[in-house]
Amino acid sequence: MDRKRNIIVLLTDFGNDTPYPGVMKGIIKSINPSVEIIDLTHNISPFSIEEGMFVLWRNYKYFPKGTIFVCVVDPGVGSKRKILLITTKNYLFLTPDNGIISGVLWDNAEVIKSIISIENKKYFIFPTSRTFHGRDIFAPVAAYLSLGVKSRDFGHEIEFYRIKRLLYPVIKKCNNTFIGRVMHIDRFGNIVTSFAKEKFHKLLENKEFYILIKNKKIANLKNTYSEAVAGIPTLIWNSFDCLEIFIKEGNAAKVLHVNLGHEVILKT
Amino acid sequence: MDRKRNIIVLLTDFGNDTPYPGVMKGIIKSINPSVEIIDLTHNISPFSIEEGMFVLWRNYKYFPKGTIFVCVVDPGVGSKRKILLITTKNYLFLTPDNGIISGVLWDNAEVIKSIISIENKKYFIFPTSRTFHGRDIFAPVAAYLSLGVKSRDFGHEIEFYRIKRLLYPVIKKCNNTFIGRVMHIDRFGNIVTSFAKEKFHKLLENKEFYILIKNKKIANLKNTYSEAVAGIPTLIWNSFDCLEIFIKEGNAAKVLHVNLGHEVILKT
Amino acid sequence: MDRKRNIIVLLTDFGNDTPYPGVMKGIIKSINPSVEIIDLTHNISPFSIEEGMFVLWRNYKYFPKGTIFVCVVDPGVGSKRKILLITTKNYLFLTPDNGIISGVLWDNAEVIKSIISIENKKYFIFPTSRTFHGRDIFAPVAAYLSLGVKSRDFGHEIEFYRIKRLLYPVIKKCNNTFIGRVMHIDRFGNIVTSFAKEKFHKLLENKEFYILIKNKKIANLKNTYSEAVAGIPTLIWNSFDCLEIFIKEGNAAKVLHVNLGHEVILKT
Repeated sequence: MDRKRNIIVLLTDFGNDTPYPGVMKGIIKSINPSVEIIDLTHNISPFSIEEGMFVLWRNYKYFPKGTIFVCVVDPGVGSKRKILLITTKNYLFLTPDNGIISGVLWDNAEVIKSIISIENKKYFIFPTSRTFHGRDIFAPVAAYLSLGVKSRDFGHEIEFYRIKRLLYPVIKKCNNTFIGRVMHIDRFGNIVTSFAKEKFHKLLENKEFYILIKNKKIANLKNTYSEAVAGIPTLIWNSFDCLEIFIKEGNAAKVLHVNLGHEVILKT
Repeated sequence: MDRKRNIIVLLTDFGNDTPYPGVMKGIIKSINPSVEIIDLTHNISPFSIEEGMFVLWRNYKYFPKGTIFVCVVDPGVGSKRKILLITTKNYLFLTPDNGIISGVLWDNAEVIKSIISIENKKYFIFPTSRTFHGRDIFAPVAAYLSLGVKSRDFGHEIEFYRIKRLLYPVIKKCNNTFIGRVMHIDRFGNIVTSFAKEKFHKLLENKEFYILIKNKKIANLKNTYSEAVAGIPTLIWNSFDCLEIFIKEGNAAKVLHVNLGHEVILKT
Repeated sequence: MDRKRNIIVLLTDFGNDTPYPGVMKGIIKSINPSVEIIDLTHNISPFSIEEGMFVLWRNYKYFPKGTIFVCVVDPGVGSKRKILLITTKNYLFLTPDNGIISGVLWDNAEVIKSIISIENKKYFIFPTSRTFHGRDIFAPVAAYLSLGVKSRDFGHEIEFYRIKRLLYPVIKKCNNTFIGRVMHIDRFGNIVTSFAKEKFHKLLENKEFYILIKNKKIANLKNTYSEAVAGIPTLIWNSFDCLEIFIKEGNAAKVLHVNLGHEVILKT
């Protein structure tokens, strides 16, 4: 037996309006009544692996070491895509093999210790549906993991180069131009971009720069929301430590007509 | 004293945008700090007893035995409708006497052991409002139940034939035609019908059949979402083990203009 | 060390569609794995201190004594506004100094025992963002409080008259006319006003009175929703113990075109 884990975190695109997250909790609690379950979010845009990857990447480190992350943004459910258990230095991630883990792996701190392809049906709910692996595979496997079942009992090890990974969503076009994307829009209409502080802060320090989005130029960077002028699109290094476009007392995504995935150009 | 129960599951139509589920948890934890509370859903369509019945029916069995289900879809709150505590072989259900329990009782496994009409005001919050029995009656009664208070202490027993039950929402029109209904639509726009696998699978096995909805004929049945052709309405036995109409990479409910309760015809 | 606290309640305007509440829970559980976290609501209208104040005021008393309320409706995040820890006779409240505590203080039962301005960075997440104090200050401070760290360790005491408070949102215009406001609209479209039962019940007992909203006169008061006539705007003392305008089998807010903050006149 491996050591017990106390916390399972759920990240899905099921939505808060469905009973699916509740059912997953029913399964988990049936197997391990004492594990704690925390919802990170169930509102990843339907099928958006990239948004799920982003939200996981920017937030996993705020959870206790040893946390098991169960990430079900899984357009390929029922197909032959693998389900992976990725154990890193500090955490465990149970995800479809669709690249949702990519962001975590860009962080140098999260060295991979093992990758297992989940195959042992002993740990699945039977009968196993082909439409809801969240309930029938992810939930029970996470629960057995939290009880201390060893990773190797769930399937066989696979090599790092064989798993699917997404590219970091910023392309360097030339020395002073980078093309990124909108990764997340929150309920305030704040537009969160793929420009991460740890990758761009040094480059941009003490330098003029601006953002182009929908041909609109945004150049004023503030340290807090309250410093901004109401109604004017403004930049901030936000709580995800990414470059964000916001409008004080307004909804930036609505005003700028921006959706998830939209191109964002950064120029110095 | 009866034995203690560890889990209370909430199913309501209060919505996730209201503080009502949180307040119910406050009451429960005031009475029994150690009981676990799981949200099955708070997004049953307002006043839709039938959708509540359906979601409860298709999901209760995924929770640990001994779970107390608190189901508050209750358009009759404050009227003379009874509140029932229904103890079955494996579970306890606290529901208004409005038929929301019906689905559970269609399952042969769930033999009824007792039905109590909740009347003992000793276990209510005082003063007891006439608008929010979820907080003032359901929550405290569930909490005292979880502490081990005996069913009979909450009121007097009533007979099975006296409680309200809904009919199974499929009518056999003739030998090859069945009329069912849309029971649930999820955030992906998947249309879940009342045709349950355990009732129709044998009849439909190795037989051609199709669905008529809004005069549209849908005949292609797939085993997984990924097998379908994008944009084409398709059938699947879904994770509720019911016949579902979905559109790969699309929103079936929007495309077909279908709402909750809509008629669905199955022809063989 | 002070005594341990078992429950932390979250009230924010982050929305259920964001990962922010989940991240706060990650921080809290990293510091105190055994504390219980309950969501009161994350759907206060963005930046609406008044609605947050109202929802906290009408609901806090349903939680166990000793509960720590973490209230993050905080348009001034990152500015010089203080963060307060207000200890009352029965509860602890961690809030921005923006008046969100006001309702609680109108209740005579909640005598203030101390007010601390949170300043001790030892208990903050480092680095401390200027955009997400919910994660970096409120969550860890609440967690350390729940572990029994003394209030005085978090900062220095400040006097009652120095904190920001809102006025009770009802003005007496003349002997028989009071002007209140819409404080909350729920998913059923019920319009909850600022006329609280404990303040108006005696005055209105055995007296004719009516409500004017959008020049529409509403005079029929019912004890339960089920007594009302479908489609007709009706009054009720609701589960918040406030005067509410509802339409049976309808959506009052939509029919009457009423928004949060709208004026409501009560005449006797």
